[in-house]
Amino acid sequence: MNETLSPGILSLLPLFYVGWSDSVLSPSEMKLIHSKIKSYDFLSEEEKSYLLKWSDPLNPPSEVEFKHWAQSIKKASNEFSESERHSLIDLGIEIAKNNSNNTISDSTKHAIEDLHQALGLNNESQNLLFDKLFPGLKTKQKSQKDYDPNVIKSLLDSGYDDTKNKVRSLLKDPMFALNHEADKDIHRLRVLEQLKALAKQGLSGYAFPEKYGGMDKQGDHIAVFEMLAYGDISTAIKFGVQIGLFGGAVYMLGTEKHHVKYVEALHKTELIGCFAMTETGHGSDVKGLETTATYNHNTKEITVHSPNFAAGKEYIGNAMHSSMAAVFAQLIVDGESHGVHAVLVPIRDKNNNLLPGVKVEDCGYKLGLNGVDNGRIWFDNVKVPVDNLLNRYGHINESGAYESPISNPSKRFFTMLGALVVGRICVGLLGINASKKALAIAIKYANKRRQFQSKDGSETLIMDYPTHQRRLIPALSKTYAYYFALKDLAEKYKDATEEETREIETLAAGLKAKATWHATHTIQTCRECCGGKGYLFENQFSSLKADTDIFTTFEGDNTVLMQLVSKGLLTEFKQSFHDDGYRAVIKYLFTKVKHDAYELNPVFGRNTDIEHLLDKRFHFHAFEYRRKKTLLTLSERMRK
Amino acid sequence: MNETLSPGILSLLPLFYVGWSDSVLSPSEMKLIHSKIKSYDFLSEEEKSYLLKWSDPLNPPSEVEFKHWAQSIKKASNEFSESERHSLIDLGIEIAKNNSNNTISDSTKHAIEDLHQALGLNNESQNLLFDKLFPGLKTKQKSQKDYDPNVIKSLLDSGYDDTKNKVRSLLKDPMFALNHEADKDIHRLRVLEQLKALAKQGLSGYAFPEKYGGMDKQGDHIAVFEMLAYGDISTAIKFGVQIGLFGGAVYMLGTEKHHVKYVEALHKTELIGCFAMTETGHGSDVKGLETTATYNHNTKEITVHSPNFAAGKEYIGNAMHSSMAAVFAQLIVDGESHGVHAVLVPIRDKNNNLLPGVKVEDCGYKLGLNGVDNGRIWFDNVKVPVDNLLNRYGHINESGAYESPISNPSKRFFTMLGALVVGRICVGLLGINASKKALAIAIKYANKRRQFQSKDGSETLIMDYPTHQRRLIPALSKTYAYYFALKDLAEKYKDATEEETREIETLAAGLKAKATWHATHTIQTCRECCGGKGYLFENQFSSLKADTDIFTTFEGDNTVLMQLVSKGLLTEFKQSFHDDGYRAVIKYLFTKVKHDAYELNPVFGRNTDIEHLLDKRFHFHAFEYRRKKTLLTLSERMRK
Repeated sequence: MNETLSPGILSLLPLFYVGWSDSVLSPSEMKLIHSKIKSYDFLSEEEKSYLLKWSDPLNPPSEVEFKHWAQSIKKASNEFSESERHSLIDLGIEIAKNNSNNTISDSTKHAIEDLHQALGLNNESQNLLFDKLFPGLKTKQKSQKDYDPNVIKSLLDSGYDDTKNKVRSLLKDPMFALNHEADKDIHRLRVLEQLKALAKQGLSGYAFPEKYGGMDKQGDHIAVFEMLAYGDISTAIKFGVQIGLFGGAVYMLGTEKHHVKYVEALHKTELIGCFAMTETGHGSDVKGLETTATYNHNTKEITVHSPNFAAGKEYIGNAMHSSMAAVFAQLIVDGESHGVHAVLVPIRDKNNNLLPGVKVEDCGYKLGLNGVDNGRIWFDNVKVPVDNLLNRYGHINESGAYESPISNPSKRFFTMLGALVVGRICVGLLGINASKKALAIAIKYANKRRQFQSKDGSETLIMDYPTHQRRLIPALSKTYAYYFALKDLAEKYKDATEEETREIETLAAGLKAKATWHATHTIQTCRECCGGKGYLFENQFSSLKADTDIFTTFEGDNTVLMQLVSKGLLTEFKQSFHDDGYRAVIKYLFTKVKHDAYELNPVFGRNTDIEHLLDKRFHFHAFEYRRKKTLLTLSERMRK
Repeated sequence: MNETLSPGILSLLPLFYVGWSDSVLSPSEMKLIHSKIKSYDFLSEEEKSYLLKWSDPLNPPSEVEFKHWAQSIKKASNEFSESERHSLIDLGIEIAKNNSNNTISDSTKHAIEDLHQALGLNNESQNLLFDKLFPGLKTKQKSQKDYDPNVIKSLLDSGYDDTKNKVRSLLKDPMFALNHEADKDIHRLRVLEQLKALAKQGLSGYAFPEKYGGMDKQGDHIAVFEMLAYGDISTAIKFGVQIGLFGGAVYMLGTEKHHVKYVEALHKTELIGCFAMTETGHGSDVKGLETTATYNHNTKEITVHSPNFAAGKEYIGNAMHSSMAAVFAQLIVDGESHGVHAVLVPIRDKNNNLLPGVKVEDCGYKLGLNGVDNGRIWFDNVKVPVDNLLNRYGHINESGAYESPISNPSKRFFTMLGALVVGRICVGLLGINASKKALAIAIKYANKRRQFQSKDGSETLIMDYPTHQRRLIPALSKTYAYYFALKDLAEKYKDATEEETREIETLAAGLKAKATWHATHTIQTCRECCGGKGYLFENQFSSLKADTDIFTTFEGDNTVLMQLVSKGLLTEFKQSFHDDGYRAVIKYLFTKVKHDAYELNPVFGRNTDIEHLLDKRFHFHAFEYRRKKTLLTLSERMRK
């Protein structure tokens, strides 16, 4: 190997090796590269001369030259550590390092990338070609020592290590111990105490600004919430009701006067409140709520009223402990209805007695979450000052007229409901973390429990049965896939611009539905995989199953949410093209799908090498292919 | 139409109409029919002359004649009531009725059937031809009035109406009311009272002979058990433990001395007993039980002993209330082990105090069935007389030697376990009836609940949403399919000969697994379909879910049972042929499958007429086709 070659040139060696190998590149393609090299003014003449020689379509490298190249490549590949990922560029850089102490200049990097493109190689196909040409140089399978639990923990804690560790230590406190609590009223008091302990530890204020005693760290708020899956899930839900729903309504739908008055008190749990949206008669259909909030300009008061039994608020968490409710009602000003708005209504006095006109009924025992005090609330012409209207999106001015920054009532309604998005992300995470816990229990058990004698006389570990593996391992990988998807969405949500809102809402709806159904299924499987032991309360599947069961239907019924996702995708699909261009669109997309799945990924569906199967780009392509194809066939069928 | 024609001849009209239509029959086929008619000596000459004329291959009916036939057919079809099932024969008989007051003679019926066969028409194809030729004459869809609830009730009660009605009225008694019982000890006492009430009403003795105060009606015993799904399922399970498991062990594994002493007392619940088989260390693998029962010929006593912690009996229903246990242990006589046998061991005295050497521990709260007193039991060298050995299949004689009517220890073991078969049928039925109850609640709710305004201003019934229908209706039909399959199996079991035992065991294993998984899935779906209402204890999904959850893993873990089924099917498949004839077998079966699915059912997979889809023969063919194909491909893959 010529010692005078620059590192940039050396790093291109594997590329040319591949280019000339077999029939990867045609002479005309080589000619194209040849001419491109001539045009690069950032290359020195010496560099150019080498590259021109290497790429001369009429003078391919001699066999001896080719062998030299192969030796360099082989040598460089030996330097690779086991955990490193190969690509032609990696290999080239390794060769450059072997032959020179200089680093590669930006201009040469530019040339490398440009030539890769000219060769028509994207990263995926580079790797595949690499595998094909250098089958002996494959990365070995990762050994156990590569899995450092601290690295994985840090990856999973994803920057919220401190906050998560705080929750971890709090959950070890005896007051958070997971005991069976047969009596719901005692259970509820215990959970209320836990909620207050979270506040005392400063774990409830992350979602709010510093001027209201908070920390303005939305990501940490979500981190606290998801960690509560490992304690009594009733506490997580009560925390969600108090901070996410009631707190969210006051903060997101209210204005400064409400923030000043209530935010600090509520996250410090001095003011317990509830989120009174759902009614007996209207759950998924929030637009159809029947409770009225009628403004009287003479008294500057709003009268909150439940016109009938089914207009009563139902399943309201915190209903038995709250002194205030954020009541969602049809706002009527001067005889005209302006749609659903939230009004703060005090429901109990300081001695915890119900205020006049307010009727509350306990929802009683539930399938699970018996530590949460769900109740029903009816209002009989309860009057509150107009200031209690959470008026960020709908305001009653001094002259008694309604005004709103969003003139379209439908858009206004969906903007207000947008405050629910973070709740959906949180519920999804709660379900997924409950799944992680269930899997941890079931897999640990499967790695200890033995049943049926094998031929050598010992009993077989149940984890060694393929049936058991097939039940638990895909559930495990799906659980972490959902986890990372939800965490990614949480980050997106945190920094979202207004244009991204729609996409985030669609993603939250879809992921909430899929993740919570997955949780129901996974926890069930884990219970069954532990047989009789799984049925005992002490082994925790009982609470995990019961407490997460409602996740599939609250914060949006999963079936309805999936329809929302379909609608979102179809609308997006339709909007991207004019209607008359429809056929062209389909053709375009089919081409694109084919390109993505087959061309960029030439051995799609055939290559079963570990590297290929572990390659996230392959997964991404496969997923994109499926997404596009499904959407396309759906829209075609609907068009019919 | 000629008024002199006999009704028999008239009834053949549609057949000939079809025969001549289009190209249904070839001239040579008509010739065959023609010659057959001549040979019938039961036809009068006049009748023969008409038929010969109608079937003369050289002289097809004129167009006018054909039209006459069509008119007669059309007229006759108008007489059909909505609920009647059409076939060419039905139609012919109707024509005969229209034209004559005489009924059809047996000989003519014979001729009709014979000619149908000569025409190569089975019932299925007749109907299909009928539909094709007379598309206007289709049977209308059955109207509501055809569904008489009493007829359906009687069909479902399947001959056990009286017994089932008895249970129905008992369940209406306030002592059987479904209240929330937070405390397990109170719940257990309540369930024990219910068990005693069942005995008092004479509902516990059906499984036993009259000489022991029973009624010798196994079918009625199963009927009682399945009905208990509609009450507190804890009571059903306690009844199953006391009567089915403990009673079954004494009666099926014991001999007359045991029957005389215990059977009447146990079904009258004067003697409460438990079935102590499962151990902490060995559940599915009963053969591996570690408890020992060692015979000492000097004292003529058997010593029952748990050699270690994991050899303790676990999840034993009735453990806290029992005075006696049927303990499954390795029987050791003169130092030699003879495998698992059952021994009756008294565990409590009359004052309900534990006897020396017996240790019992409460399993505590469970995911569900908290009305059943499950516990753990250990024995520390507990001595009982040799007479306590349940000795039907394994006996210790006067000289202290072991003897058995079944010399093969493995066969003996499986014969003893055969006593569990009825338990599996019962658990399957319990799961299915729990599904029926869940579906009844969810479907009734879906037919009342409305959500989201439709275009006409009214709110849409949730049952009208296709998503809702797709979730509930297939679950409903599957539930009844499983129900009838299990009831059919129960009848088979009742009258089974020894040769049928293996098939019944395989069926029971498979149906128990499929039915209980179906129950878990269906009850979950029903809960979700009722949203928040479904989560409230008062709406019963809570108990239905929790109480039936264990069904998938007790009385045989479903995954293990399905493997037993696969093994059974493959063994049967293998046994039917010599190994060297394997290829021939596959060929044979493929031919057979093809024949069954396509030939007997000519429009398989294409015909979507209501009649065809409701035709049970079509379902049977489709099912058989699938079964055979699955078995065939499985055995082929395993052969590889």
